[in-house]
Amino acid sequence: MSHTFDDLWSELLPIGRFGGTGGYRRFSWTAADAEARAWFTEAAERRGLDVRGDRNGNLWAWWGEPGPDAVVTGSHLDSVPDGGAFDGPLGVVSALAAVDELKRRGVAPRRPFAVGVFVEEEGARFGVPCLGSRLLTGVTAPERARALTDGDGVTWARAMEAAGLDPERIGPDPEVVGRIGVFLELHVEQGRALVHRDTPIGVAEAIWPHGRWRLDFAGQADHAGTTRLADRNDPMLPFAETVLAARASAQRLDAVATVGKVRVSPNGANAIPSRVRAWLDARAPDEATLRAMVDEIESAARRSSGGNGVTLASYQESLTPVVDFERGLRDQVAALAGGAPALPTGAGHDAGVFSAVAPAAMLFVRNPTGVSHAPEEWAEPADCHAGVAALADTLTDLLTR
Amino acid sequence: MSHTFDDLWSELLPIGRFGGTGGYRRFSWTAADAEARAWFTEAAERRGLDVRGDRNGNLWAWWGEPGPDAVVTGSHLDSVPDGGAFDGPLGVVSALAAVDELKRRGVAPRRPFAVGVFVEEEGARFGVPCLGSRLLTGVTAPERARALTDGDGVTWARAMEAAGLDPERIGPDPEVVGRIGVFLELHVEQGRALVHRDTPIGVAEAIWPHGRWRLDFAGQADHAGTTRLADRNDPMLPFAETVLAARASAQRLDAVATVGKVRVSPNGANAIPSRVRAWLDARAPDEATLRAMVDEIESAARRSSGGNGVTLASYQESLTPVVDFERGLRDQVAALAGGAPALPTGAGHDAGVFSAVAPAAMLFVRNPTGVSHAPEEWAEPADCHAGVAALADTLTDLLTR
Repeated sequence: MSHTFDDLWSELLPIGRFGGTGGYRRFSWTAADAEARAWFTEAAERRGLDVRGDRNGNLWAWWGEPGPDAVVTGSHLDSVPDGGAFDGPLGVVSALAAVDELKRRGVAPRRPFAVGVFVEEEGARFGVPCLGSRLLTGVTAPERARALTDGDGVTWARAMEAAGLDPERIGPDPEVVGRIGVFLELHVEQGRALVHRDTPIGVAEAIWPHGRWRLDFAGQADHAGTTRLADRNDPMLPFAETVLAARASAQRLDAVATVGKVRVSPNGANAIPSRVRAWLDARAPDEATLRAMVDEIESAARRSSGGNGVTLASYQESLTPVVDFERGLRDQVAALAGGAPALPTGAGHDAGVFSAVAPAAMLFVRNPTGVSHAPEEWAEPADCHAGVAALADTLTDLLTR
Repeated sequence: MSHTFDDLWSELLPIGRFGGTGGYRRFSWTAADAEARAWFTEAAERRGLDVRGDRNGNLWAWWGEPGPDAVVTGSHLDSVPDGGAFDGPLGVVSALAAVDELKRRGVAPRRPFAVGVFVEEEGARFGVPCLGSRLLTGVTAPERARALTDGDGVTWARAMEAAGLDPERIGPDPEVVGRIGVFLELHVEQGRALVHRDTPIGVAEAIWPHGRWRLDFAGQADHAGTTRLADRNDPMLPFAETVLAARASAQRLDAVATVGKVRVSPNGANAIPSRVRAWLDARAPDEATLRAMVDEIESAARRSSGGNGVTLASYQESLTPVVDFERGLRDQVAALAGGAPALPTGAGHDAGVFSAVAPAAMLFVRNPTGVSHAPEEWAEPADCHAGVAALADTLTDLLTR
């Protein structure tokens, strides 16, 4: 079993890795993405699975005939810019390795069973995370998705078309969704709770409500040397105050707020910027706190913009309500994984989206660095193998009872 | 005369203009730059001037034979990102229009005379402003220039080579420099002093000492949702504090400080950045004040970095001492321009670099918006024509006495 995992892992590892940083740049509908998808298709077919794409670009590798009340497990292959190797791929590779383990055990599924790969989970290229699962389940409207643009102004529709898919066909797909009887996602832990508990596997208790807001600070480009301070409308100043306000709000409310992405125009060293566009990522234990925090940050941004002759426009790009994973399934998975502890998480996942349409659960694999979304993201091979075993145990139970 | 200016202006106007912003992207050694240089060469040759490139890539259009004690006028054709149409090109076009006017007047120069175009004046691509004139006069060492990189990691040497020039030959050129007897640069005003004085033409009194510093804030990339605030090393926070500290210092010291260029890595909305690289542009009436201001800002940056578990590295990319234009030439030019007022400026210019090797002077043309380094940069046609007349009057005087 571990042998199978290691082989699959080695095959996928070089795809989309950027030599300059050692991180991954697997963005939806790019060449690296196509290569990763082709790898998955080939690896699944080698195992006798029947790989089908759905209308939204997600991949489903079926063991036998697709049908209702299916057990589905999977994750994603896209990455954040210069992300780690594990976030997403660990769930996909573990699912394929678990298929091998089920065969080794001679498991004969009594329910339909599929391994899924879901597109644009990170939202790294088009701004809306879990876009594949959201489109499929009708959470995101197809018109909105088609119009989303990447940093170069390329739309989702255009990018999908360039990858050989038909963007006119995207949207909710009750037939595909209706087959999901239970959804399992194995994922690298994105923190160090399992390190502190000295155990390799955990299960998800809840996903914090979270969202992404875009803040556009518009000022007036001007010469950095000749424009008096009093004559400036410099959007960098309210942007900077907003970064600090976000941290202060998060601290006070026991939440998290991050400004990790910024685009400055024209971005010249001797030009006052005409515009600073920033993205706020905010997450809190409950929705009231999240709302209060974002309101505070937006107020601070607006106040500081006004004081600097800058105009502010704010857009909510995504908002995901709290997800409480179903207690019964979670306890079952935890017991099968040898009494794995239940952990809350601040990260969104496709499992959270699917929890709205079927019982869903997540398995976390210990990450000694605690780091995620960076090349230092890590899981020990032995812990990965423990993850495959826990997943295989859960699948055996779900498929044969 | 005005006719000639208008024709030349219209020819140059479309080159390197970016439709998306209406601003210019004429960066050194790019296709737009090559097109602008070809336009200059062709326009100068049409006037019977003999165009020669020097070893550093600057262009010299000679009226007759090159020789010592020459009168040289000119400016640059490169732009900041999304810059205006006037900064640089106004001086070049006005110089060519002044040549036509001298011919119309039947002026027979008693001294050598050239129109110059100097490369990388803005430092927009490689970070060091006035690089063409600095290399020529030995202010910047050729090894340093060759190793400068643009945003994509392309070196000055490689870019110059790709444009068909030999980077091994760059550096101080006493033969070329030795010909400059007097240097004149006409430039659009980058402020509104002439608007307030209700006069179209001014002359430069002094250029404030100024420089550019690069600040690298290095933290640890991590997941925006799952990393506790206490566990973060987020370089965006000390960066933000530094932006605000720069403004506060400048305000207190009656100077200017600008952070107009920022690069965030990996620049993902749900990733804490691993690095924020920012450029500080600082200018002050005297060098002691400039030094004090930059020290204050660097101290604030270092303090805030330390408090956030972030490391700071700071590099001085350029530093230009104060330039006091020679009093005699300035008064002479001001008188020939009908009593033009003398204005200090915070902007660096090739004329400032050449003032170290020859008497130099600058003519400013009124800018009703006061805006520069942005598409709103403007000069009325009548004021441009007044600029050409003032330049032609000065040249006539210098060439025939």
